[in-house]
Amino acid sequence: MRTTLILSGGLDSTVLLFHLRREHDVRCVSFNYGQRHGTRELEAAREIAMLAGVQHQVLDLTGLSLPSALTTPDAAIPLGHYADASMKATVVPNRNMIMLAVAAGIAIGEGREAVAYAAHAGDHTIYPDCRPAFVDSMAAALLGCDWQPITLLAPFITWTKADIARHGVEVGAPLDLTWSCYQGGELHCGKCGTCHERREAFTVAGVVDPTRYAG
Amino acid sequence: MRTTLILSGGLDSTVLLFHLRREHDVRCVSFNYGQRHGTRELEAAREIAMLAGVQHQVLDLTGLSLPSALTTPDAAIPLGHYADASMKATVVPNRNMIMLAVAAGIAIGEGREAVAYAAHAGDHTIYPDCRPAFVDSMAAALLGCDWQPITLLAPFITWTKADIARHGVEVGAPLDLTWSCYQGGELHCGKCGTCHERREAFTVAGVVDPTRYAG
Repeated sequence: MRTTLILSGGLDSTVLLFHLRREHDVRCVSFNYGQRHGTRELEAAREIAMLAGVQHQVLDLTGLSLPSALTTPDAAIPLGHYADASMKATVVPNRNMIMLAVAAGIAIGEGREAVAYAAHAGDHTIYPDCRPAFVDSMAAALLGCDWQPITLLAPFITWTKADIARHGVEVGAPLDLTWSCYQGGELHCGKCGTCHERREAFTVAGVVDPTRYAG
Repeated sequence: MRTTLILSGGLDSTVLLFHLRREHDVRCVSFNYGQRHGTRELEAAREIAMLAGVQHQVLDLTGLSLPSALTTPDAAIPLGHYADASMKATVVPNRNMIMLAVAAGIAIGEGREAVAYAAHAGDHTIYPDCRPAFVDSMAAALLGCDWQPITLLAPFITWTKADIARHGVEVGAPLDLTWSCYQGGELHCGKCGTCHERREAFTVAGVVDPTRYAG
């Protein structure tokens, strides 16, 4: 299958790239939507795509000015557990539908059959556009959005992040190159919701955490 | 209802604006996706939104380089009947899903409850993302894309363009300000598929066509 993958440069989408490329002809798209950790995240995505030997394109959506703590330079990034209600400040409105819609437009233009993203079970509490019902309705919409059906792949939708980390080792994903931290500093801060989630995933998976955390 | 409308500056979305604003708090978004007739179309949208007294914003998606005869400066715009198979060259891949997704993102950011677009029955043959099944699945996806449900409004989905022209008169829409022609010249060319469709709609509706056609 010829598949366009949304690659953020984080753990989940990186493992999905190495998972898919065993059987798919994959090309990757990343998005700059003004995320504060964009420089680090998109740098990681570029490096990972190059290592995987797949085509990669960064698309600029900064003109949309989507409002979120993630896209507002002076807003506080909530610290603490990733499933805390406070983490909802990091929701970027309709981010996944926008990214999937654009990825599908590009896939259609290139005659590709599928788009993929790495939503997983750990996202369900905070991110509405990672829930199974959203995936199902988007899958239906993508099947009918063009004269050629586009298949939506979200194979990690019921997996935990620990499952993904474990699988990452199996498929040889470069976990050390992935970037999660929402702060976007020199090193992972180790304190924001997504750093907590990353650390916990490695611990639960029993996989050595290759991340250098600040402090 | 607080509703975000996708306003192209054409006949259908202009009538929808005047239809909705009788009962909705409407704000409009238009998109520059590199359409050749963009200057004329977006100019029309601006003028119409100003006349309607509603907020209006043009969003730039030219960075996505969506491929179509409509976005390729040297490609031939197919002439003739708007339902001819040749008109499929004017499909912009996944345009409506992208526009709806972005409009919903903006609506969520502003606490609005609905997004609207003017797909109609005359589009079904050529544009896959105007078909009722697409509207239904997108409606489901939009209900679940955020913690607050977003309602998708496509009230013209079973109407003909003649129905829309007739209704335009009833709701006082400025039909003379609307722009349809894909060629984007000084005047409507009168020959491209969308000019054919426009002319036919006025004739069938028994509405005086206010358009000045070239030649």
